Amino acid sequence: MNEYELRDILNAVKSENLSVDEALLRLKMKPFEDLGYAKVDYHRGVRQGVQEVIFGLRKTKEQIHGITMNMLEHGAKDILITRICRESADYLREMLPKDISFDYSEISRTGVVNKNNDKELKGLIVIASGGTSDLPVCEEAAITAETLGNRVYRMYDVGVAGIHRLLAQTDVLMQARVIIAVAGMEGALASVIGGLTDCPVIAVPTSVGYGASFGGISALLSMLNSCASGVSVVNIDNGFGAAYSASMINRMKDV
Amino acid sequence: MNEYELRDILNAVKSENLSVDEALLRLKMKPFEDLGYAKVDYHRGVRQGVQEVIFGLRKTKEQIHGITMNMLEHGAKDILITRICRESADYLREMLPKDISFDYSEISRTGVVNKNNDKELKGLIVIASGGTSDLPVCEEAAITAETLGNRVYRMYDVGVAGIHRLLAQTDVLMQARVIIAVAGMEGALASVIGGLTDCPVIAVPTSVGYGASFGGISALLSMLNSCASGVSVVNIDNGFGAAYSASMINRMKDV
Amino acid sequence: MNEYELRDILNAVKSENLSVDEALLRLKMKPFEDLGYAKVDYHRGVRQGVQEVIFGLRKTKEQIHGITMNMLEHGAKDILITRICRESADYLREMLPKDISFDYSEISRTGVVNKNNDKELKGLIVIASGGTSDLPVCEEAAITAETLGNRVYRMYDVGVAGIHRLLAQTDVLMQARVIIAVAGMEGALASVIGGLTDCPVIAVPTSVGYGASFGGISALLSMLNSCASGVSVVNIDNGFGAAYSASMINRMKDV
Amino acid sequence: MNEYELRDILNAVKSENLSVDEALLRLKMKPFEDLGYAKVDYHRGVRQGVQEVIFGLRKTKEQIHGITMNMLEHGAKDILITRICRESADYLREMLPKDISFDYSEISRTGVVNKNNDKELKGLIVIASGGTSDLPVCEEAAITAETLGNRVYRMYDVGVAGIHRLLAQTDVLMQARVIIAVAGMEGALASVIGGLTDCPVIAVPTSVGYGASFGGISALLSMLNSCASGVSVVNIDNGFGAAYSASMINRMKDV
Amino acid sequence: MNEYELRDILNAVKSENLSVDEALLRLKMKPFEDLGYAKVDYHRGVRQGVQEVIFGLRKTKEQIHGITMNMLEHGAKDILITRICRESADYLREMLPKDISFDYSEISRTGVVNKNNDKELKGLIVIASGGTSDLPVCEEAAITAETLGNRVYRMYDVGVAGIHRLLAQTDVLMQARVIIAVAGMEGALASVIGGLTDCPVIAVPTSVGYGASFGGISALLSMLNSCASGVSVVNIDNGFGAAYSASMINRMKDV
Amino acid sequence: MNEYELRDILNAVKSENLSVDEALLRLKMKPFEDLGYAKVDYHRGVRQGVQEVIFGLRKTKEQIHGITMNMLEHGAKDILITRICRESADYLREMLPKDISFDYSEISRTGVVNKNNDKELKGLIVIASGGTSDLPVCEEAAITAETLGNRVYRMYDVGVAGIHRLLAQTDVLMQARVIIAVAGMEGALASVIGGLTDCPVIAVPTSVGYGASFGGISALLSMLNSCASGVSVVNIDNGFGAAYSASMINRMKDV
Amino acid sequence: MNEYELRDILNAVKSENLSVDEALLRLKMKPFEDLGYAKVDYHRGVRQGVQEVIFGLRKTKEQIHGITMNMLEHGAKDILITRICRESADYLREMLPKDISFDYSEISRTGVVNKNNDKELKGLIVIASGGTSDLPVCEEAAITAETLGNRVYRMYDVGVAGIHRLLAQTDVLMQARVIIAVAGMEGALASVIGGLTDCPVIAVPTSVGYGASFGGISALLSMLNSCASGVSVVNIDNGFGAAYSASMINRMKDV
Amino acid sequence: MNEYELRDILNAVKSENLSVDEALLRLKMKPFEDLGYAKVDYHRGVRQGVQEVIFGLRKTKEQIHGITMNMLEHGAKDILITRICRESADYLREMLPKDISFDYSEISRTGVVNKNNDKELKGLIVIASGGTSDLPVCEEAAITAETLGNRVYRMYDVGVAGIHRLLAQTDVLMQARVIIAVAGMEGALASVIGGLTDCPVIAVPTSVGYGASFGGISALLSMLNSCASGVSVVNIDNGFGAAYSASMINRMKDV
Repeated sequence: MNEYELRDILNAVKSENLSVDEALLRLKMKPFEDLGYAKVDYHRGVRQGVQEVIFGLRKTKEQIHGITMNMLEHGAKDILITRICRESADYLREMLPKDISFDYSEISRTGVVNKNNDKELKGLIVIASGGTSDLPVCEEAAITAETLGNRVYRMYDVGVAGIHRLLAQTDVLMQARVIIAVAGMEGALASVIGGLTDCPVIAVPTSVGYGASFGGISALLSMLNSCASGVSVVNIDNGFGAAYSASMINRMKDV
Repeated sequence: MNEYELRDILNAVKSENLSVDEALLRLKMKPFEDLGYAKVDYHRGVRQGVQEVIFGLRKTKEQIHGITMNMLEHGAKDILITRICRESADYLREMLPKDISFDYSEISRTGVVNKNNDKELKGLIVIASGGTSDLPVCEEAAITAETLGNRVYRMYDVGVAGIHRLLAQTDVLMQARVIIAVAGMEGALASVIGGLTDCPVIAVPTSVGYGASFGGISALLSMLNSCASGVSVVNIDNGFGAAYSASMINRMKDV
Repeated sequence: MNEYELRDILNAVKSENLSVDEALLRLKMKPFEDLGYAKVDYHRGVRQGVQEVIFGLRKTKEQIHGITMNMLEHGAKDILITRICRESADYLREMLPKDISFDYSEISRTGVVNKNNDKELKGLIVIASGGTSDLPVCEEAAITAETLGNRVYRMYDVGVAGIHRLLAQTDVLMQARVIIAVAGMEGALASVIGGLTDCPVIAVPTSVGYGASFGGISALLSMLNSCASGVSVVNIDNGFGAAYSASMINRMKDV
Repeated sequence: MNEYELRDILNAVKSENLSVDEALLRLKMKPFEDLGYAKVDYHRGVRQGVQEVIFGLRKTKEQIHGITMNMLEHGAKDILITRICRESADYLREMLPKDISFDYSEISRTGVVNKNNDKELKGLIVIASGGTSDLPVCEEAAITAETLGNRVYRMYDVGVAGIHRLLAQTDVLMQARVIIAVAGMEGALASVIGGLTDCPVIAVPTSVGYGASFGGISALLSMLNSCASGVSVVNIDNGFGAAYSASMINRMKDV
Repeated sequence: MNEYELRDILNAVKSENLSVDEALLRLKMKPFEDLGYAKVDYHRGVRQGVQEVIFGLRKTKEQIHGITMNMLEHGAKDILITRICRESADYLREMLPKDISFDYSEISRTGVVNKNNDKELKGLIVIASGGTSDLPVCEEAAITAETLGNRVYRMYDVGVAGIHRLLAQTDVLMQARVIIAVAGMEGALASVIGGLTDCPVIAVPTSVGYGASFGGISALLSMLNSCASGVSVVNIDNGFGAAYSASMINRMKDV
Repeated sequence: MNEYELRDILNAVKSENLSVDEALLRLKMKPFEDLGYAKVDYHRGVRQGVQEVIFGLRKTKEQIHGITMNMLEHGAKDILITRICRESADYLREMLPKDISFDYSEISRTGVVNKNNDKELKGLIVIASGGTSDLPVCEEAAITAETLGNRVYRMYDVGVAGIHRLLAQTDVLMQARVIIAVAGMEGALASVIGGLTDCPVIAVPTSVGYGASFGGISALLSMLNSCASGVSVVNIDNGFGAAYSASMINRMKDV
Repeated sequence: MNEYELRDILNAVKSENLSVDEALLRLKMKPFEDLGYAKVDYHRGVRQGVQEVIFGLRKTKEQIHGITMNMLEHGAKDILITRICRESADYLREMLPKDISFDYSEISRTGVVNKNNDKELKGLIVIASGGTSDLPVCEEAAITAETLGNRVYRMYDVGVAGIHRLLAQTDVLMQARVIIAVAGMEGALASVIGGLTDCPVIAVPTSVGYGASFGGISALLSMLNSCASGVSVVNIDNGFGAAYSASMINRMKDV
Repeated sequence: MNEYELRDILNAVKSENLSVDEALLRLKMKPFEDLGYAKVDYHRGVRQGVQEVIFGLRKTKEQIHGITMNMLEHGAKDILITRICRESADYLREMLPKDISFDYSEISRTGVVNKNNDKELKGLIVIASGGTSDLPVCEEAAITAETLGNRVYRMYDVGVAGIHRLLAQTDVLMQARVIIAVAGMEGALASVIGGLTDCPVIAVPTSVGYGASFGGISALLSMLNSCASGVSVVNIDNGFGAAYSASMINRMKDV
């Protein structure tokens, strides 16, 4: 609630267009809907420019369905659900009204309900990955970015152990407004890309690997220690978070 | 070396304006100057839009002076030196030509040689910090951001244990294009700010604290696990890196 | 065995109402019942004011049943069993005498045998949680606290990334005698609540999250480093322990 | 700002005793004083019942002096300064007005300015420690607790490797309202005390030890895993935090 | 091969009772039998006084059977197999000659083939445990110790959170030649026992617990940091190793 | 692309045997084939002397089959697939043309397609292992080394706890050009072998063990800290990597 | 206090030779002397057969002197002080009565006050070390063991990277009743010795090394994972603890 | 001692040219010289082809001098001393005979006594480093390699954040027989080099960096997880170890 809204309420009280009790209510009014097991945040669209995203991990299929229906009732399009397993996705598909679309990507366990096919994709986010095994995280990022309205270029399997595969596409890298660098194992991709380009790089360590990769710690540390400037890092396997940040940056020019 | 430059060289070879040997030389030409102990990268201004920055940690005062002089000879202004200790700063001040300015910030151990006072500061980067002890990192970020041409607002000592100090300045947060959240201990500041605003947040964990803060690990993990979207993280105490990324983003609109 | 009991025994020996051998026996008498696989501690009701609680983890269903029956034979009510799986709960329900009630909460894997519905719930413990996924730990705490005779207010899904959801309920927080703050991921909830209120806060890190949450380590460190005063911490996912401590504090005024 | 204050302001606006602009100001008014390098929180006395405490670590002697003077000007007594080194303490003593007392404990690096000798110490907090080396942390806790108005009993060097030293004082333990258990190395003291008594135990791991004590991690983990109920834990070496929580609990009965 | 054997061989060569080639062979002779997948060490009985024990973890049932048969053919009794799963045990029972006994303890996954019931059990090893969940490790230790010829006293569920359960059996502790202290969680049992007695204590941390017990690390560190003298530690869950060391010590007096 | 190739292209442009556009294409030409989900690197045979190896972990059976077929179409022999599970191996066997051989080693999950039985095995790589449980890693190394054309000697179950088993084969160790030392648990094998021999030792820690072996970390640290010279280390369980490095070294003399 | 003493007191009460109050006093009597900063445990000589040892780390020179004098007044000989720095040792030497001897070993920072030169050294403890740098820990162990009345053989610099240095002394190893194996870096010495001999081995990891030795963690893990039976482990650098345990075992035969 | 020597001794016994006692002595003869504090290994030159190197860390200057003199008396040249501090170096220079040369490199703390200037340097080892701060480790490697008789090329400051600096020297990389890749921070250099070349790469992580570099752990993990084949790793900052391994490989062709 910003200064102008506050002033409006106070003026309405002064002019007796609003009772003290009603003003009190508004000042304390919860800008979210309470479903018991979750508080859906409808103020967020105003506050952050993007509606609430459903994080499916550890939510039951009934909870996911409940939140989705509540959002549909508020007229939401492009409802993004991340980390939703096959079983919940099947349940959701069955339970949704027949005229509501549901796109599910199994590899990234990401779903989009009531997709808006009319929106124009803006700018350019390049998603570069170290190897084939990083695909699930890459696709979570790609689908998130596209759902948020960004144009995406997928540049997969360009790990630093075969550096020519990456260098061969330097021109594409140069056109990006933001680059998401996804890599497990030694996570060096972010540094190399950071050194090659002049746009912000969001690095996503992945839990791909074995032994001393320690579920992504190795890649995470590597990326945090990047000696290239302009690189920042999100949580291990957090394709969604990287895409969300990247979208904020990519769309900045269009606002 | 991009496609157009490559095509130019090839056309010059074809038209015999350039010998094969000279073309060969150009294609292999090193776009950096080798001082023996360091390779100063003058191609970087072209490649990344920002000239090389001198990272002072573990460099001798003679090495820092040498690189600075080499850059001055190439006509550089706003030469930024980070992590330069008092002793090296004193040495540098004494050794620099008398007409060259040198601004040194002791708290952040940051120096600027041949400062350009004419450049206009653009946009708005807010630097918020959890406590008084985070000041060195904050100032490294602030000076870096200003040297790179950004307008900066310092919002210090607004840690989450006294949340009203932060909420009282929500309006400033709302005007930022990028926010740098600097915090040690539990590092919760980034999440709270991330939830309040709609711009990218770059989180900087600091090594401030004791016991289970483990030299910044606690704050680092906290920030990586932020449940607020739009937060990405840099290395512990890396004020410079945060400011560099923030500058890339802040200046995007002005390009 | 305190001074008064000791003095009584000694006086009884002196007055020859007690033989030396019997006194010896009493002085060494074990204040617990030995079931072979477990030693049920009936002295604890005296020593700590609360009877023994059955920690179900890694106990067989037969062991849980055995201890429960032994306690029932000693006239116990409100027998609390934590971390008891579905299968053991089903077995227990079947094996218990028909007139003995058994309430089982599947989400928190907590059971209460021979519940005392007559006791008055005292004071106020607020249980606040960061997200929907923290529910199992919250409910373990809530059921524990209620079984121990405390009034409980559930304030779920008020994580710091949407700080207004928490601030909207500040008045409830202000009425609490103790607050249990349950959070995974970055665990910042405890610090924010600690800064808002003037009562003790018991923080419970949860293993909710992925990647760099490291099974709750991130939240644990965050809470240990809280810059708010009045916050202490229990083990990851230890809803029971938090509620037990909170109950001790909440009931202090009523003793 | 609670509901009643809010209602007062609104009623004043309605009755035109308060202009909209003045109401606006009050609603946004910062309840802290900004010294530039720090924001002194005078609302805290209201909000938490205890005035701000100065955490001396990484603050310059000038900053500590500045905050102290500002608090004295607001009429503060019993100004507690933790983690203040010898040099800053000497500086502070010299700079303070001659009629203002300053008690400094070197072993715990704790200072109290303008001590209130008239206040009555209430209840009983027992501070038990494992060994002689834990003294600095114990004394930080003891001085904090006394300054906050609690009666304190020091029970030092009662580590579990000579359990009879602890058992010999069971009667004192039994009289405590709260016990602070301070221990390094294997940190078992908290569990043994937790099993012996029926009041809350706040455990403080210390960085005392060598080798696999890892600067207090061993004791910290030990305490978090305590199989005794009623034990909660604070950061390594955080005597202040333990005493602050203990004080909240100890004084509960007297409120 | 000791000096005397060496001297014998050399004397035999000198007196021409042994050819150079045969001496060469003996000097290089492998004191083990090679089954391809394993080298069974028959020299160990001579070298260490105890025959080879079969460590079942990650061995196939066929491999376990093969080694057992090979040992039986060499006339072995009391063949101890640790960490052998139910399935392998069933297979082994079926495949063994009908006149060969096989005792299997499911809780500790330990088996004894061709048990020698005639041997006299010597001395006294006390095995004390913190809780019911430590039983598998305790029983591995107990069966190992008994198979190696030691008298064993099982003192289970005497964790430090109810210290009187342990103190009630001080007289038994005092009779032990060696004590094995088995505990998970905070692992304090070893220190308390070490402080109460005057014989060597072998501490076994267990992986029992959850959250910050980190699979036994907490107990392990606790035990390594024991402030009681006379405590040494073996690997997490290594009941066998503790019993083996304890047996060496217990039997020392009888040699 | 080396200097000579570059010079050839430039000369062809000069002599007008190659158009500028064609030269441009060649200079940027990707030396790999893009299958969408993977970029198969055919330049590697030239660049590194060994063709691409298929790392099966986290690849689908269809992806593995696709890459294999693509390589067969390029005429590849001895196609090595590591970390391929039983199910994918069965699928591959069924889908391959009937005249193409497929050797699968279940214990090491390694497969070889279209094996070249004519190549002569050169030099000598000794693979020594600590225990029976290290077999899977050993065999991955052995099959890799043999497929790359090296003669291999398997020296299994020679762990340092029975040092005579190793010493008995000193003569074989002395003949090796490179030794691969595979060990879990305490990982001491590499140091002992390193001290006995005068050739490079590649150490492979394995995840064999339990408790404080921490999935191979203990062995890894042990090997990195080896006080024997000439020992270098690869990732935990990385039999392939060790064999690849060993092959480079072993074949050096034959080049 | 054992059963017999208890029975005596009770009988004395019965026969009225002891008043109830005096009996009460005796039953609660503290078997230690309280110096304020420390509780000197004189019951320990009875309880554990060895008098209290002064652990000098983090004790002031005045505290060490105070405890020493108190012990001398109780007639103590062979007062062992471990981890006492040069400065405290000099102070102690100066302050002690002139007729009291004080032997100080600088390399191990160990001191012995009022040494008993008449006692006969019994049995045999071999102390084997990996390298020259382990000397301080070895000597702490050696002096402790000798002060406790054990015969000691020093076998230094026999690390596994030159295994013949160890094997050359197998006969000495064979005569030991207990072996203390001291090693940093990869810590393999304990396993090799454990495999060669048939007596208990106490392993002491040392903090010697750099990089991935992590202050002794590498050696500690190595020793805990020893695949040789009969090896148990004490804390990093804990020469005293190893010697204390070894002494208990070595002297067992002589009791 | 190999088979042939053994056979010779036995034959000499048989032919009575050697008494049994003398043979016994020879068979047990120690192939090292015992200085008390160290056992200098003269057998090593025979066993490993390279004489003993003095590891100066934690050795006193007197010990270093003693070992050096002992080696000089045995006629040693090119005596390499690593990790020797300035003070010990000064002492050594002063104490050495005037006709014995001593070359000391301060940056790497490496010394060479009685340097052999006549030996021919063979093959080619390239030492590549990520940044200026890695110089001390690089020079330790370079001096070690040269002292062991290898030709060395120093390729410093070619970190992956400016990948063109490395690519510009691909031709040199291609000529190497072995490459040592030295890097701190994210340690990606080894992977990139491993992908570019066809010779073994020995990776050396350095402790250069701050924050999440954790003293070299980040670089170490990165290198262990390298997705390039042919990369093996040594301990953090272990320039000596890398050079020793590299020398073994480089000289293989010349043997």
